[in-house]
Amino acid sequence: MALIVQKYGGTSVGNTERIKNVARRVAKYRAQGDQVVVVVSAMSGVTDGLIKLAKDITLLPSEREMDMLLATGEQQTIALAAIALHSLGLPAVSLTGAQAGIVTDGVHTKAKIQNITPSEVHKLLDAGNVVIVAGFQGQTPEGAITTLGRGGSDLTAIALAAALKADLCQIYTDVDGVYTADPRIVPAARKIPEIAYDEMLELAGSGAKVMQLRSVEFAKKFNVVFEVRSSLNDNPGTIVKEETNSMENVVVRGVSFDKNQAKITLFGVPDQPGRAARIFRALSDAAINVDMIVQNASHGGGVPATDLSFTVDKPDLAKASHVIDGLKATVGFKETVADENIGKLSIVGVGMRSHSGVAARMFDVLAHEGVNIGMISTSEIKISVIIELSKGEQAMRALHKAFLE
Amino acid sequence: MALIVQKYGGTSVGNTERIKNVARRVAKYRAQGDQVVVVVSAMSGVTDGLIKLAKDITLLPSEREMDMLLATGEQQTIALAAIALHSLGLPAVSLTGAQAGIVTDGVHTKAKIQNITPSEVHKLLDAGNVVIVAGFQGQTPEGAITTLGRGGSDLTAIALAAALKADLCQIYTDVDGVYTADPRIVPAARKIPEIAYDEMLELAGSGAKVMQLRSVEFAKKFNVVFEVRSSLNDNPGTIVKEETNSMENVVVRGVSFDKNQAKITLFGVPDQPGRAARIFRALSDAAINVDMIVQNASHGGGVPATDLSFTVDKPDLAKASHVIDGLKATVGFKETVADENIGKLSIVGVGMRSHSGVAARMFDVLAHEGVNIGMISTSEIKISVIIELSKGEQAMRALHKAFLE
Repeated sequence: MALIVQKYGGTSVGNTERIKNVARRVAKYRAQGDQVVVVVSAMSGVTDGLIKLAKDITLLPSEREMDMLLATGEQQTIALAAIALHSLGLPAVSLTGAQAGIVTDGVHTKAKIQNITPSEVHKLLDAGNVVIVAGFQGQTPEGAITTLGRGGSDLTAIALAAALKADLCQIYTDVDGVYTADPRIVPAARKIPEIAYDEMLELAGSGAKVMQLRSVEFAKKFNVVFEVRSSLNDNPGTIVKEETNSMENVVVRGVSFDKNQAKITLFGVPDQPGRAARIFRALSDAAINVDMIVQNASHGGGVPATDLSFTVDKPDLAKASHVIDGLKATVGFKETVADENIGKLSIVGVGMRSHSGVAARMFDVLAHEGVNIGMISTSEIKISVIIELSKGEQAMRALHKAFLE
Repeated sequence: MALIVQKYGGTSVGNTERIKNVARRVAKYRAQGDQVVVVVSAMSGVTDGLIKLAKDITLLPSEREMDMLLATGEQQTIALAAIALHSLGLPAVSLTGAQAGIVTDGVHTKAKIQNITPSEVHKLLDAGNVVIVAGFQGQTPEGAITTLGRGGSDLTAIALAAALKADLCQIYTDVDGVYTADPRIVPAARKIPEIAYDEMLELAGSGAKVMQLRSVEFAKKFNVVFEVRSSLNDNPGTIVKEETNSMENVVVRGVSFDKNQAKITLFGVPDQPGRAARIFRALSDAAINVDMIVQNASHGGGVPATDLSFTVDKPDLAKASHVIDGLKATVGFKETVADENIGKLSIVGVGMRSHSGVAARMFDVLAHEGVNIGMISTSEIKISVIIELSKGEQAMRALHKAFLE
């Protein structure tokens, strides 16, 4: 008998028929004697509908009240899921985030979980119930309703699994697991049976949109083993866990391509202390997230100068260009070039630590394909390059073939 | 500076434009220095949509889970109303029933308010906020979400007004107030400026569908003066309050006709102790609500026998007839006749206590109109008669003319 936390996203509970499917799946686990805690998101479309109502009233609604509003989405799903379990003859009780003992800080719309007191969940489980908890939400110590922001339901599931010392945490989604590459682009892509937290983090940060970074970070911090799997079939998914020795035998775990990047290059930045700081502080003040930064060695006659390139999310490009233009006088660079026809191609694997020559091999493969490399950035377990957008898919297939087939 | 509790029903908050209207009305009271607590229902249609989702899953959903589900309707409205007030530059904070300190018993879907601890409401009011409270809901001492059943938002407003010792409680609805008769039937009907609790109760129990009985009973018990008025204009409404001496000067406050009644007559019921008890216990066990009961004097030769008539809600007629048929052997009546082509015509007024001859005058008027009286039932401040359904409107107009014009 195991204690399992299962999380179902908005698509998996998108209508009453799907909610009944969730109930049937839960019933299977109960039938084999497991205790089950179910975490659900709002039915797909519900949250967007509520946001639209608020925006009808004002474009800048209060964050506290948005939390009050949006928390109703998950609350509806937990009630419907409990009703669906009852209709199968299973005892089930729904709990809001607050009722489940999820306490957060007071940063509305992106609250952080401070602690979980799962006594009510334990009590209900011990009485034989399936316990259904609203994902994405909690309450402050003062009793205000909060939401956890994007990917919040995954976080609820993983945090509950940690607090309950669950044997297993399953994240049900509409894909079968984590793949070596996006199968729509790379037909030879395979499902990865096991992946290390760090690899999952690097893949998520490289455009593979399986889960939000913060949920994986939380799982890593509290060492919660979780499985990403499909709510549409019974196939085993991908287990995400602490790195094991055998994982290092695989050099590259996955290949990803992030089309959502744009590049800005500043030519002729005076090579003096504080210039880069001034640039990136201005971007940060404008709430623009910078991903890769590459600065070349100093060059040129007269005052030594350098070229500085960085990438931002594509939707932020216009705003970033505007910020940079305003710095021309104080920073003293010569000119800027913005390029949105680029993407970030990455290979990820903990095996890179113990295998040398991975970068060289990657660059060889790309050269062979005629793909020009614009920027390079590496971490211990990841190599990312900026390439021309139109070459992305071809390059992915080539790297996948070289490292993973 | 007054403390005002305002309640807006589902139609008054039926879309974002109407919610903005509510905010504008609240702003007017704030501008004259009043403190305002707003109680809102779910947007019209929302509750029905949620019920439909639950019924899609099972026809008999758990009552606890229905409360969890339906409570989200009001929670959405409070958030949207707060957002609308913010957009007018007014500080406002929304509270769920639980957060507002409304504690109920554990009878899900029709919970009774046990007590209200309005400390949070007071604190927020003192800090200068409009406080917006979700109607229709509360929580048990153990923290389960409950709903108060039909008319629950009125009850929330009146109970909050009592707990806060508010100066005024306004129930906003889609009619201008309480009328001497339904203006769609009696063109000469007038809005009643002031009405006693007991008159309001008798009118509500006679088919005038302004408010649920329990809210008026609660207001009477805690002596909460409230005003029923329209959310569509600024006309003064009807003040409902403790009876005053001057109210007795008016003999009849209003006329009503309840089409929703049906009559069953049992002929030849043996005139022996316990027969009537057996009949009405059986009906009560079948959850059938009996309104009027009339038993004639004993008659006939041999064993003395009587005729017994009673009325039930029209939708319960078939069920009631079935229950009665099953009693034929044990009760020993001769035959039954069911009639659904009837209605209950009532006149109500505390002035009846001090004026004699009211019934005689009523019967005169009806005789003059050629309206036959099937049953008569009286209370201290009400006379009701059962008449033929098709004569109802004509009879209402005649009584209104005789007593109220």
